[in-house]
Amino acid sequence: MSSHFGHAFRIATWGESHGGGVGVVIDGCPPLIELSEADVQRDLDRRRPGQSEIVTPRDEADQCRILSGVFEGKTLGTPIAISVLNKDARPDAYREMEQAFRPSHADYTYQAKFGIRNWQGGGRASARETIGRVAAAAVAKQVLRALLPSLEVIAYVKTIHELTADIDPETVRFEDVEANIVRCPDAPMAVRMIELIKGMRSEGDSVGGTVECVIRGMPAGLGEPVFDKLEAELAKAMMSLPATKGFEVGSGFAGAKLRGSEHNDAFVMEGDRVRTATNRSGGIQGGISNGEAIFLRVAFKPTATIFKAQQTVTTDGEETELRARGRHDPCVLPRAVPMVEAMALLVICDHALRQRGQVGALQG
Amino acid sequence: MSSHFGHAFRIATWGESHGGGVGVVIDGCPPLIELSEADVQRDLDRRRPGQSEIVTPRDEADQCRILSGVFEGKTLGTPIAISVLNKDARPDAYREMEQAFRPSHADYTYQAKFGIRNWQGGGRASARETIGRVAAAAVAKQVLRALLPSLEVIAYVKTIHELTADIDPETVRFEDVEANIVRCPDAPMAVRMIELIKGMRSEGDSVGGTVECVIRGMPAGLGEPVFDKLEAELAKAMMSLPATKGFEVGSGFAGAKLRGSEHNDAFVMEGDRVRTATNRSGGIQGGISNGEAIFLRVAFKPTATIFKAQQTVTTDGEETELRARGRHDPCVLPRAVPMVEAMALLVICDHALRQRGQVGALQG
Amino acid sequence: MSSHFGHAFRIATWGESHGGGVGVVIDGCPPLIELSEADVQRDLDRRRPGQSEIVTPRDEADQCRILSGVFEGKTLGTPIAISVLNKDARPDAYREMEQAFRPSHADYTYQAKFGIRNWQGGGRASARETIGRVAAAAVAKQVLRALLPSLEVIAYVKTIHELTADIDPETVRFEDVEANIVRCPDAPMAVRMIELIKGMRSEGDSVGGTVECVIRGMPAGLGEPVFDKLEAELAKAMMSLPATKGFEVGSGFAGAKLRGSEHNDAFVMEGDRVRTATNRSGGIQGGISNGEAIFLRVAFKPTATIFKAQQTVTTDGEETELRARGRHDPCVLPRAVPMVEAMALLVICDHALRQRGQVGALQG
Amino acid sequence: MSSHFGHAFRIATWGESHGGGVGVVIDGCPPLIELSEADVQRDLDRRRPGQSEIVTPRDEADQCRILSGVFEGKTLGTPIAISVLNKDARPDAYREMEQAFRPSHADYTYQAKFGIRNWQGGGRASARETIGRVAAAAVAKQVLRALLPSLEVIAYVKTIHELTADIDPETVRFEDVEANIVRCPDAPMAVRMIELIKGMRSEGDSVGGTVECVIRGMPAGLGEPVFDKLEAELAKAMMSLPATKGFEVGSGFAGAKLRGSEHNDAFVMEGDRVRTATNRSGGIQGGISNGEAIFLRVAFKPTATIFKAQQTVTTDGEETELRARGRHDPCVLPRAVPMVEAMALLVICDHALRQRGQVGALQG
Repeated sequence: MSSHFGHAFRIATWGESHGGGVGVVIDGCPPLIELSEADVQRDLDRRRPGQSEIVTPRDEADQCRILSGVFEGKTLGTPIAISVLNKDARPDAYREMEQAFRPSHADYTYQAKFGIRNWQGGGRASARETIGRVAAAAVAKQVLRALLPSLEVIAYVKTIHELTADIDPETVRFEDVEANIVRCPDAPMAVRMIELIKGMRSEGDSVGGTVECVIRGMPAGLGEPVFDKLEAELAKAMMSLPATKGFEVGSGFAGAKLRGSEHNDAFVMEGDRVRTATNRSGGIQGGISNGEAIFLRVAFKPTATIFKAQQTVTTDGEETELRARGRHDPCVLPRAVPMVEAMALLVICDHALRQRGQVGALQG
Repeated sequence: MSSHFGHAFRIATWGESHGGGVGVVIDGCPPLIELSEADVQRDLDRRRPGQSEIVTPRDEADQCRILSGVFEGKTLGTPIAISVLNKDARPDAYREMEQAFRPSHADYTYQAKFGIRNWQGGGRASARETIGRVAAAAVAKQVLRALLPSLEVIAYVKTIHELTADIDPETVRFEDVEANIVRCPDAPMAVRMIELIKGMRSEGDSVGGTVECVIRGMPAGLGEPVFDKLEAELAKAMMSLPATKGFEVGSGFAGAKLRGSEHNDAFVMEGDRVRTATNRSGGIQGGISNGEAIFLRVAFKPTATIFKAQQTVTTDGEETELRARGRHDPCVLPRAVPMVEAMALLVICDHALRQRGQVGALQG
Repeated sequence: MSSHFGHAFRIATWGESHGGGVGVVIDGCPPLIELSEADVQRDLDRRRPGQSEIVTPRDEADQCRILSGVFEGKTLGTPIAISVLNKDARPDAYREMEQAFRPSHADYTYQAKFGIRNWQGGGRASARETIGRVAAAAVAKQVLRALLPSLEVIAYVKTIHELTADIDPETVRFEDVEANIVRCPDAPMAVRMIELIKGMRSEGDSVGGTVECVIRGMPAGLGEPVFDKLEAELAKAMMSLPATKGFEVGSGFAGAKLRGSEHNDAFVMEGDRVRTATNRSGGIQGGISNGEAIFLRVAFKPTATIFKAQQTVTTDGEETELRARGRHDPCVLPRAVPMVEAMALLVICDHALRQRGQVGALQG
Repeated sequence: MSSHFGHAFRIATWGESHGGGVGVVIDGCPPLIELSEADVQRDLDRRRPGQSEIVTPRDEADQCRILSGVFEGKTLGTPIAISVLNKDARPDAYREMEQAFRPSHADYTYQAKFGIRNWQGGGRASARETIGRVAAAAVAKQVLRALLPSLEVIAYVKTIHELTADIDPETVRFEDVEANIVRCPDAPMAVRMIELIKGMRSEGDSVGGTVECVIRGMPAGLGEPVFDKLEAELAKAMMSLPATKGFEVGSGFAGAKLRGSEHNDAFVMEGDRVRTATNRSGGIQGGISNGEAIFLRVAFKPTATIFKAQQTVTTDGEETELRARGRHDPCVLPRAVPMVEAMALLVICDHALRQRGQVGALQG
């Protein structure tokens, strides 16, 4: 089940970075939702390589095709298959990785697990695998537009290395995120971040950072007791993205340094609606949304594949030195933004349908 | 599926804090594993209330009973049902919560989701719910003893409020964790932590902190590509515990501030075995264990239920003030330690069986 | 997952015939459904042993207890745990089965699969295991009363050995089924069936038969394309009952002998409603209900445990002769009736919630 | 989850008869299994239309492409995506079905369920959907060749209308099945069956029948207690095929007419191996294989789409008459044979991996 996600809105992704292609099958999508290839392509274009000078130059149009589940512009309620064929695959650039394991990459662990790996690129561990997720999330977005029209999911780069942007999650706008190539809506900081990434690339090095994501217009009541708490599902969703090392929601790790009397969010009435005076809970209490904005942060490590010489071992157990070639992102953060949004959309869509199934209606 | 966890070693928990009891059903446990009620009770005793002066005084022996799946001291391969009946339930102490929502607790969100809640205590959102997890993990521990005899899972309190312990995850011992009531193996710091918690309790306040967990003796090859990455499953597991706000593995959020050349773990040979020279990956690469120690940290917020007056609203939408009574932990951390271990054990056991099913054998 | 059933209304059963007890945990039940222990007990009493002179005399009251998920007479939306403790267990009556495998029973296959078995009775393969199913179905019945008030599920004995009852599934009433101890609503035939069973018991032999089940008042639109077709789910549900050898729906095996022009059900209008002029489809087309009555039949083999001497082998591989003692049904059919109803209710309830989740509302 | 099947060897199929194509994603396949497109194509060719004069003349090569999960001729352990694009789609032949529901077809129920349907052919309810199953089963066959080399799964036509073939399931050979176009290894009866089908086609009518399937070389110990009994999983698998009305295993419905003393299979020793003297159990006892041949039968109704005028209603609720055009099988049985084999292979492969996961090794 390694490649399945979701319960009511359930996706199965497939594909390696160097093979026939990548894609996804979505099961459980409601019928009569408007959906076109353009809806999917729009989001794929945000995560594709080659879109700016600070990401990998691999030249992939990532042209999607919807192969089933849609008829005359509307979903049928049957599985939606979306595929993207691989075009600009250059396995020769990976020839040295046939014999040597890249440090902190998945080469060694895949070999240890399966006794075989597709060494031509990252295989299943490549960021290319996220195409299926982003495509499925584009469908989830259409479903949520119909079910929860007020919902907004916006992610953006919060930090790169030591640089931290100043952004208000309650008011940040999608246009401001897309206004620059690093996807940081704090414009002056974005300039500095872009410079930093360019510098890293010129050194053959890489750098990490954090993405913040806010979900506004949430109804109260999504999420479930115990294991499928909304924060648990979001944590799994985000930590399943390549290169992630940490997740926090609401007050996060900083909240662990507060007293209860400082941390608790007092309830207040706003007209007929129950609100909280503060939002350290991050919109989730006891695993279930309370109607306030959900905000979360995800830590991404620096890209493992760098162009500096590194110590490693071969598949035969010999120590060696490896200097990568190929085309790689010096910083995954700009392209991670649509991936984080995608995972949030998949979780919310799944829980919206689960709630409708068990309880019968959605608030908001 | 809110109360199911795991795929091959699959558990279903049940129970509210004030009702007949709590428990778990485990499906998929291998046969012929030695298991007694004493094996389970030992771990339940570590998480039960009333075990020390810094946790809730609710007096529950939490006596478990194995009702099925075991015959003459060995597992049958059929479902193992374990139950613990509730004894010291005092619903009257919660009477004011029938009408008012506790700030930052699950009272409001359960009501918003289901239109009903068991207001006598935390219901399904109570820490009491974790009994089923700890019981199931005691079974997982027996399975892992048979399958992976070198495996060790040790959790401990790393921080309380601003106090941070100094502990080496590679060498920390279980006995040192259990040597004091706060479960912090840095003995001088443990004394200070205990004083801090006592102070909070006397003020009617509460405090948060972090638990660190190390998994040593891991075989390489556990975990799966894409969604069921080991870190993703661990993240979900930990973030499904009550009061959690953050999760990190290996270098965590600090890793997001490093360059690739600083962060990457060089591979080296140690005899026949592939090792890493450093361990910023935290024992997982590409979602799959590499044989190094896994270490992770979980942030817990301060307990929501405090004895100070707080602003809130009633079920009828009136603003009011609430001052909790009842018996509550001023700090969940000491009792969170066995819960974190339990969740780690459940994830590892599940993935060990999944690996054996798909690939046929386990390393190590 | 051997002991899980259902997707949205998901149950996990546990228990052996000789052990602590048996029971079930139900996850995904809608909240605010009226539910009492009496609702469950009523159905358990119909399947319990010792209820008449033609079933096993094992004296079990099968007293159920609801341990969680219900508060002040209504479901909470959280897991509902129901347990029944074993009382009249007499393992000594099974002592010879410790060494010898009963022919056509599960003794040998459990030993071959798991390397261990609870030889004290049928263990997990006992009909006692169905208590959890019947209890869960009693909850499903309450859910369906709220969601689909016109729905009726009625099963009855259609044949015993060569005796075939004459019953109209469109009009048969529950009271007529319960009017006699063999649960055959064709009263004169019921008398003959009872005589036949008594004769078998006095000979130390057993006998099989078929149960027919009708589901009336079904909305159109339940069931799913492809694998979870309604007839496929019903087939699995029924064939998971002990001692079943066959399943058919609508025209069944007889339908395989017809031409298309004879078999097809013409559509006609009845007021605003689309109906079929005939019902060879048995209420299901393409895996989805069409609003007509669903009817199905299940074949049960004669009870394996008989009191005549039989040739078999020991656990040590020696040939031997076995003559059973203990308390056994000479014919499972009368007690199979509530089991068949239970499985039908579980399937319908699960699909009703699935439909509400994916499509948003139920017809009818 | 309507389009998912299996637990450890898990498939997700997609596709409509008239749309981009059809296919499958297989998750959980063991690594290092030899697999080529030719292995899959061989089985697809057995189920494709246009292969003989007694099946539908739709001209589809059903050329498959493996898009992921295979590298240098071996499986990687990652998802295997296989697709077949639609070529000879002629939606115009279905124009009258845009307005009118075909009797006993899925047209009405899909519309009732989803509020929309792809009326250009059978959509998701078309037999074309089984391509994904047959492709996945071709992979399962390769896995089973490695895990259980003695295993053989052979299906064949047992009856057409009133014609019944005389075949010994213990000895029937694959070559004899493939020796004629109706796939009935009783050669003289095959001649009569072919004549019968040709007659039906010339009358514009259709006819049903039964397929029998035998699984030889099974190890003991596959299958699970309670819901995932081997016969229950096989029943679901078979009843999920289009046009099925009944399923039986071993003695089947005829077994319901026997006494226990007649039905029970005595155990005997054959060297070191426990065997049964007879095989009325059909190779399964208590839901678990006993090592004897499994045999089962599946009833298929006559094809719903016939060329005679039939009474029906329109989507607007008007009564009308429909006379189908298009290309349809006058009898699904010859093409159902590889479908039945496919479903059996999928069930056995899934349970072999489940057994290896839980218990650690496979017998035989």
